[in-house]
Amino acid sequence: MENYKHFLVLLIFAFAVGFVSVVLVLRWVLSFREGLGWDGGPTEFNWHPVLVVIGFIFLQGIAIVVYRLPWTWKCSKLMMKMIHAGLNTLALVLAAVSLVAVFDFHNAADLPNMYSLHSWVGLAAVILYSLQIVLGVGVYLLPISPAYLRAALMPIHVYSGLFIFTCVIATALMGITEKLIFSLKDPKYKDSPPEAVFVNVLGVLIAVFGGLILWIATRPSWRRPSEEHLRRVQGRDPELESSKPAAAMSDRPDPEASKDARRRGKTEESGGAA
Amino acid sequence: MENYKHFLVLLIFAFAVGFVSVVLVLRWVLSFREGLGWDGGPTEFNWHPVLVVIGFIFLQGIAIVVYRLPWTWKCSKLMMKMIHAGLNTLALVLAAVSLVAVFDFHNAADLPNMYSLHSWVGLAAVILYSLQIVLGVGVYLLPISPAYLRAALMPIHVYSGLFIFTCVIATALMGITEKLIFSLKDPKYKDSPPEAVFVNVLGVLIAVFGGLILWIATRPSWRRPSEEHLRRVQGRDPELESSKPAAAMSDRPDPEASKDARRRGKTEESGGAA
Repeated sequence: MENYKHFLVLLIFAFAVGFVSVVLVLRWVLSFREGLGWDGGPTEFNWHPVLVVIGFIFLQGIAIVVYRLPWTWKCSKLMMKMIHAGLNTLALVLAAVSLVAVFDFHNAADLPNMYSLHSWVGLAAVILYSLQIVLGVGVYLLPISPAYLRAALMPIHVYSGLFIFTCVIATALMGITEKLIFSLKDPKYKDSPPEAVFVNVLGVLIAVFGGLILWIATRPSWRRPSEEHLRRVQGRDPELESSKPAAAMSDRPDPEASKDARRRGKTEESGGAA
Repeated sequence: MENYKHFLVLLIFAFAVGFVSVVLVLRWVLSFREGLGWDGGPTEFNWHPVLVVIGFIFLQGIAIVVYRLPWTWKCSKLMMKMIHAGLNTLALVLAAVSLVAVFDFHNAADLPNMYSLHSWVGLAAVILYSLQIVLGVGVYLLPISPAYLRAALMPIHVYSGLFIFTCVIATALMGITEKLIFSLKDPKYKDSPPEAVFVNVLGVLIAVFGGLILWIATRPSWRRPSEEHLRRVQGRDPELESSKPAAAMSDRPDPEASKDARRRGKTEESGGAA
């Protein structure tokens, strides 16, 4: 299945770039900087980039594409929603701890908080991400919201998820810029010492990871098939079934399936990004 | 037509935010900085943010959504392609001049070029944007490429356009961060003088403009209708016709129209973002 191979190659590439980014951010703070600690000093600050790259970027990226992994199409939609919500919640917890680290560091060094564009966009992203998770759980995970509301809010849920993810990556690039200017004194950032080049490469990899996740998340043909389709092929392998492009991997929604669902008073959510 | 009103409100909001960003960047360099000039000094550098915000952000944003303006659906696809390509080319010229300004400034002040993450991502964006325009003109404007190639490359053309636009905005936010750290000495950026707050607000507006353009460009129901549909309603007002959701504003492509087009050896491109 050519399309499936294409998906797999891009997915493996995205995960590899994300994993290398995590390795590079660890190497940055452990080899070029002061290491990790929790004493209000630079070692505490260093948790900030580490936890952001691991949680707010890598884990959030996985959470975004998790519905699209064909081997999860055997799992129930409820289980996938719980994995999606769980990964995002874990990412939020790591992002929150990363904020505590930087506030602690600023307060201990008597530096003001929240003055930079990095901090403004970053805090906005954390607040929007919290709202996204609370609303996502309330609307899609708890069995309380009506079908029409779930369907109406899905494009906004998908778009705001991708927009927040993009804002987080832009904020990380600003953070790298700030940190290299403030930390590199002799030689300076403009003299391109090895640390500057190393961390610039980390920034480029983060941007590439974001671009790959956004591409995977926005291909209509890689969307999780409708629950109707999966029920029809129950007992068979969804990966094999997905080789039928007119059904599982179609760009078009299945209007009959949607009508059926509406008749039963429940509408399928799109299962990840549209 | 509720959907049309929704589109109009968002479009006007996006244009207002983009226009205010242009006003703010002009006020920044004219009131807070040294003004504009072309002498290798700071006044020449100041063309860099001004031309990036006007051309690479505001004009590119308009170029991205230009197919989606319902009042342009009366115009031929060829004319719209020329407007789309023309706006993007103008944006590229302004971006190129903005690069000359910053290289001139660096060389005159004996500052190294291309050391920062801002410069790496920014130059990559300019190179990718040039390639995007050359390939876009070659594949979609010149009548030389076969229909299957136009159709196959359209998702990549649309995605890479939106990805480059997003990279430009992320680069602008890094540029603002750099410039405020380097320029504000007494008081410093961390002391939040009026210029720091003013330019942070500019950065937030640029991010909001990007978010609005990406939302408008990715709503399937706001896509330019197929040429088949527009030909069918020739002589009538496309804006009125677009109120028929099953035809003009449908999320689904019209498979019959595509088949007809293929039979005639030409396939409709999707007309802007998918």
